[in-house]
Amino acid sequence: MKNKEEIIKSSNYIILNPYDFYGKWDCVFKNDNPINIEIGMGKGDFIIGMAKQNPNINYVGIEMYDSVIVRAVQKLENEDIKNLRLIRMDAKEVEKVFNKEVDTIYLNFSDPWPKKRHSKRRLTSHEFLLKYDKIFKGEKKIFQKTDNIDLFSFSIESLSTYGYMLKNVTMDLYNNMIVGNIATEYEKRFNKQGVKICRLEAYKD
Amino acid sequence: MKNKEEIIKSSNYIILNPYDFYGKWDCVFKNDNPINIEIGMGKGDFIIGMAKQNPNINYVGIEMYDSVIVRAVQKLENEDIKNLRLIRMDAKEVEKVFNKEVDTIYLNFSDPWPKKRHSKRRLTSHEFLLKYDKIFKGEKKIFQKTDNIDLFSFSIESLSTYGYMLKNVTMDLYNNMIVGNIATEYEKRFNKQGVKICRLEAYKD
Repeated sequence: MKNKEEIIKSSNYIILNPYDFYGKWDCVFKNDNPINIEIGMGKGDFIIGMAKQNPNINYVGIEMYDSVIVRAVQKLENEDIKNLRLIRMDAKEVEKVFNKEVDTIYLNFSDPWPKKRHSKRRLTSHEFLLKYDKIFKGEKKIFQKTDNIDLFSFSIESLSTYGYMLKNVTMDLYNNMIVGNIATEYEKRFNKQGVKICRLEAYKD
Repeated sequence: MKNKEEIIKSSNYIILNPYDFYGKWDCVFKNDNPINIEIGMGKGDFIIGMAKQNPNINYVGIEMYDSVIVRAVQKLENEDIKNLRLIRMDAKEVEKVFNKEVDTIYLNFSDPWPKKRHSKRRLTSHEFLLKYDKIFKGEKKIFQKTDNIDLFSFSIESLSTYGYMLKNVTMDLYNNMIVGNIATEYEKRFNKQGVKICRLEAYKD
């Protein structure tokens, strides 16, 4: 039996040296299609589903934890999805990996970091929005889903303050279903439990 | 001593027959400047302040209750503000008074109508947004302030679903002060008490 590290390292989906492709992601995908990334992809249901649904968009899933990224890799064992790659790294490194190459950022069920002193770690904090400015190619687009109303409120405020416009904001996604929504693992579980899912789209020129 | 009814009826600021000016508000103000309205102006601090601050915009304050509109009228006794008028009526009549003549709608500390069966009475409900479509002249602009987080969440959701874009959303106005903010009576009191004030701007073509 392979251990986690071996499983991850042997997958064709994993980019082990993502920093090498800074400014060169067209070489990875061998085309100029838009690149959408998910920061904190977890076990990958969302990004795998999106990649299958949209073959003309490239997807990069980013996840820090071996224990979850390995699950995504295992799901992909018998798949041949040419427009999908995965990176194992800390989100705060994202600006070292993409150089004005990203079309849309997906943030799904991110760690809410509830303590105020940890607020800079939230993926919609001012600190992260500054980083995202360096990786977006054109119009900035951030799509967020979360069950955590405090993180959601923080995001609305932080994105607004930064100059993002908000569209299609809902605090109850499953009562205001968007067409083509792909559920994450958390989302499926939360929805079953009756927990409401929040979603927003943020845009900035 | 005059009674409330006499005070209201004798004020030059009050338009007693607002339905007569449907489509003809330029005749009231004798100019083509934009018309901004506040639905539920209460004792009038906000709309009076706005009218003084922006002489090239016309303002119409709408309030249903004699007991509060009389206070606004009394504040205006020794004032000569040419770009301000007040209407005593129920908000649901608004579409009978303006015919594609309004530039911006202000909703400040509106009744939250917390019971679900009363949700249609909230001034950002689908029912009211339909009415507003009939009174807006061009781009639709709704600016809301409230201390009620449930009403605020409802508004974000309702405006989004209706197709409005949201900008400058804050759940803590006094920590994210906008320049030129004019406080309502409620706002002054709530802020003193440490209650957080929410604010949003909603836009729709």
